[in-house]
Amino acid sequence: MYYVLSLQNKQRKSSSICPFVSEQVIDTLPAKSTGEHVYVEFRHERIAKNEMICRSQAFYQFMNQRRTLRFFSTDPVPIEVIQNCVLTAGTAPSGAHCQPWTFVIVKDKIIKTQLREVIENEERVNYDHRMNSDWIKDLGPLMGTLHVENEIVKPYIEEAPYIIIVLKQQYGLKNGKRIAHYYPMESVCIATGILLTAIHNANLVSLVSTPMGAENAIRSLCNRPDNERVLFFMPVGYPADNATVPYRNDEYLRKSIEDILYIV
Amino acid sequence: MYYVLSLQNKQRKSSSICPFVSEQVIDTLPAKSTGEHVYVEFRHERIAKNEMICRSQAFYQFMNQRRTLRFFSTDPVPIEVIQNCVLTAGTAPSGAHCQPWTFVIVKDKIIKTQLREVIENEERVNYDHRMNSDWIKDLGPLMGTLHVENEIVKPYIEEAPYIIIVLKQQYGLKNGKRIAHYYPMESVCIATGILLTAIHNANLVSLVSTPMGAENAIRSLCNRPDNERVLFFMPVGYPADNATVPYRNDEYLRKSIEDILYIV
Repeated sequence: MYYVLSLQNKQRKSSSICPFVSEQVIDTLPAKSTGEHVYVEFRHERIAKNEMICRSQAFYQFMNQRRTLRFFSTDPVPIEVIQNCVLTAGTAPSGAHCQPWTFVIVKDKIIKTQLREVIENEERVNYDHRMNSDWIKDLGPLMGTLHVENEIVKPYIEEAPYIIIVLKQQYGLKNGKRIAHYYPMESVCIATGILLTAIHNANLVSLVSTPMGAENAIRSLCNRPDNERVLFFMPVGYPADNATVPYRNDEYLRKSIEDILYIV
Repeated sequence: MYYVLSLQNKQRKSSSICPFVSEQVIDTLPAKSTGEHVYVEFRHERIAKNEMICRSQAFYQFMNQRRTLRFFSTDPVPIEVIQNCVLTAGTAPSGAHCQPWTFVIVKDKIIKTQLREVIENEERVNYDHRMNSDWIKDLGPLMGTLHVENEIVKPYIEEAPYIIIVLKQQYGLKNGKRIAHYYPMESVCIATGILLTAIHNANLVSLVSTPMGAENAIRSLCNRPDNERVLFFMPVGYPADNATVPYRNDEYLRKSIEDILYIV
């Protein structure tokens, strides 16, 4: 990715941002037609094999720096950054290209306070009734100072400048008519992986949380229709000055390539 | 991301790859302890707000170039690139940090031929019995010349130098003991979104497909245990010289920001 160069070299035009993927990908004249469907040539410029290796390794090192944060600064962040990250998530592939996702950016302080109340109350119920002791034990090390002696507090919901709510559209609505969505769960989660990458690329931190039990209340607070389901609740912003993350000892290290990759 | 600079400036050490995320994130001495759990300070260097905006916009433009491909070149690709992309996927967050994913890279020609046979046969059944007419109609425009006059062929399964099989671990196994996994579907799909980003960053193309009906046969061909489920089947490589992609007319364009993003 050459865009850092382009930032430092303003006279370059934006097409120099990704010189190895032809701008022609964004559509030129139709190249081929099959029945009623029209296709365009996909133009692609190869790079040297050693550059591919370097690029892939550097991107791994870059992404391996990402940590999930639970301590956010209240400092403001330009909303354009968050909007660009959401647009990037929207480039994800999806079942039959249905793009079954909705993203809500919450910046309103009052709504954030209401979200915190709903989520902390439901989390109390989760810990007391919905989650088993193994689950609570497994989560313990990740919670830092937020869950101490049975106390559950999530101040970051009010402290982070933005919350991104990721919703899955069970079905679509077009001119009031239902349209089928295929693999919406898989599609929206893939988009969320791209969203996380974009947030990290923007030098911000986040937390992907699943607000168990609070989904409908969150959807109502965000004023979303009932063909949508809340999947993820993601505070986004700068880390707090005193932010900590779990120490990665043998138990919490990321798995090694031998543990996750097999070649046949 | 400065790693392109670092590629062009070999004497820089790899820590110069992401100057804005401190290497200290990869763990220094414990900073804080809560009961039995140990935490480290999360160090983070901010960048200028206008740089965040440029970076996020450039990354969006870069990712918006990605297209799903169904026509692959047989040209070889260094396996290190694919390994790095898988390692990058492995940096994804996951429920209680269980990392419930397995990736299999298929490079063996015979196995690829067997995979093609299994998948084409099941796809025939999908079209005849498992999918309704709307679904088949919705997929039509995406299939290009592969599904013409009821003929279903997937030559790319044999042509692509690698197939990445993404598997979800329903539960983990540690020293023969079952360990619970939380939100494995969400976690593995998020990792797949990061995998796709890494493949695009490496200047390669892919197709995220869901091999309906063939999951168990694929798992057996990859010799994976039955706590794992095949989620995605992803050929990876260079596009074929004559590769085409669906023409993005009004109907197939990516949704606009107004269609996917709401701010409250």
